[in-house]
Amino acid sequence: MVPMTQAHTTTTPASTPVTVLGLGDMGRSLARAFLAAGHPTTVWNRSPEKGEDVVALGAVRAASAEEAVRASGLVVVCLVDYDASDAVLEPLAGALEGRVLVNLTSDTPARSRQAAAWAEKHSLSYLDGAIMVPVDVVGSADALVFHSGDRAAFAAYEATLKALGEPATFLGEDHGLAAAYDMAMLDFFYGAMGGLVHAFALARAEGIDGASLAPYLNTIAGILPPIAAYTATDIDTRTYVGEGGNLAMMAASVDHILHTAQGHRLDVSQLAGLKSVTDRAIAEGHGSTSWSSIIEVIAADS
Amino acid sequence: MVPMTQAHTTTTPASTPVTVLGLGDMGRSLARAFLAAGHPTTVWNRSPEKGEDVVALGAVRAASAEEAVRASGLVVVCLVDYDASDAVLEPLAGALEGRVLVNLTSDTPARSRQAAAWAEKHSLSYLDGAIMVPVDVVGSADALVFHSGDRAAFAAYEATLKALGEPATFLGEDHGLAAAYDMAMLDFFYGAMGGLVHAFALARAEGIDGASLAPYLNTIAGILPPIAAYTATDIDTRTYVGEGGNLAMMAASVDHILHTAQGHRLDVSQLAGLKSVTDRAIAEGHGSTSWSSIIEVIAADS
Repeated sequence: MVPMTQAHTTTTPASTPVTVLGLGDMGRSLARAFLAAGHPTTVWNRSPEKGEDVVALGAVRAASAEEAVRASGLVVVCLVDYDASDAVLEPLAGALEGRVLVNLTSDTPARSRQAAAWAEKHSLSYLDGAIMVPVDVVGSADALVFHSGDRAAFAAYEATLKALGEPATFLGEDHGLAAAYDMAMLDFFYGAMGGLVHAFALARAEGIDGASLAPYLNTIAGILPPIAAYTATDIDTRTYVGEGGNLAMMAASVDHILHTAQGHRLDVSQLAGLKSVTDRAIAEGHGSTSWSSIIEVIAADS
Repeated sequence: MVPMTQAHTTTTPASTPVTVLGLGDMGRSLARAFLAAGHPTTVWNRSPEKGEDVVALGAVRAASAEEAVRASGLVVVCLVDYDASDAVLEPLAGALEGRVLVNLTSDTPARSRQAAAWAEKHSLSYLDGAIMVPVDVVGSADALVFHSGDRAAFAAYEATLKALGEPATFLGEDHGLAAAYDMAMLDFFYGAMGGLVHAFALARAEGIDGASLAPYLNTIAGILPPIAAYTATDIDTRTYVGEGGNLAMMAASVDHILHTAQGHRLDVSQLAGLKSVTDRAIAEGHGSTSWSSIIEVIAADS
């Protein structure tokens, strides 16, 4: 963190005024990252009791959202969802004219595209982003932040946006792309996170404590990157040659887990949902091809 | 691979006769690993057309399962499931007397314990194991193979069993433990594998190909080991303090993914199963605690 005076007196060529709307955990983290990089930072939050910490670090609290917007050429918004950000932004269309708006609120790609349509209607320069790291990682070298939408706006503020994490990643001109990558990554993440807790539940039912199991789960996590790589090839080429076992063999393993979990009266909702997919894929003749072929069932109506 | 003559003439002190019953992909891989380590290896398979490759490497094919068993002090069986291994072993109780039987067939902990009860009835030395790596990794330094059951039997043959992978891991005297660790690890694995393919399906529906998404999925895989570690602590202590977001915030993300996937008419069986768990956990008051608290729902009746 830079001390308060330094944050406001640093005038390197990289110093660019930034406004942050929304001072929840993530919004405050964004403000801290901009301040730490030496950018004069104006902040606003609907309830003014939030954000004293970033004001203490040198952020200037604006009296209104409009005053906050008018303070900077780059306006970053991060709220709980797009219902909240739409409500804040709707009356600010005039004030946002000639500035770049970056919406880092987390929501669905569809909501990002709706927001982009609103911005286009008002001829605003709009970037839609997604922060892929926890609050305490924002601003570090490893912080992955996606942007999509207005390419020229990204180019104009790329150096400033790098304060949040390097490299700032521009995914393309479809405003929904940042949220789409976000959703896809989280889709994998939550499949794993559901399986993770279920694994600990199953182990405990078998008399194995978490500390004994955890190191072996690292072994599983370690084999996922190469699997993700060949699964991508399988899916892009729709060949499903894969590696290791075929779907029928792997579905038999899913069955073993399911029976073991049911024998301990564990909830098996997630696993049973997966089994319904493998069952249908095998019924449709994919048993002798790779696990990846379940995408033919998952995306059958897509 | 050692050439045929070398496999039979090597007589280092470590050279120990081994029998392998079952010459499917995994059984043949086990035989190759024992041969490569210089152990005289006798093999048997119900249908004798299988396993010419390991015979070519120096394995001796026995005319019957009983003859195979009588050739070695260490008898390893690896078949498709315990229905198959029970059928092969039942008539061999007499021949197995005074030898060590290691069952590496993959099935549930309950079936392992049944097999152990059968072995105990016949006063046989019995180890139940689980091979945690693909066929082509068996015999390498990284190959994880679990054993559980008769501790003295493991001690007697540990050096020989290391031919399959080092270290040979003894988990405890409960014969079900190897299969239990196997099931728990696979429970995590298949949660992730279901999420993985779903992530590619969702990305494709959003216009993102697999090759573009895959590198970012590695980022997700990379954060799983520290999460597994603190989840283990959460669960062992039942405190659910965790790190990062709370369950309510993370369940909101699951909801975003679900809506995005449904918008593309993807099958959401696995994700909906997980959401039913998070919904119930939040309804039961766990929203402000960590994600790990969903175990209270998963194991509520356990």
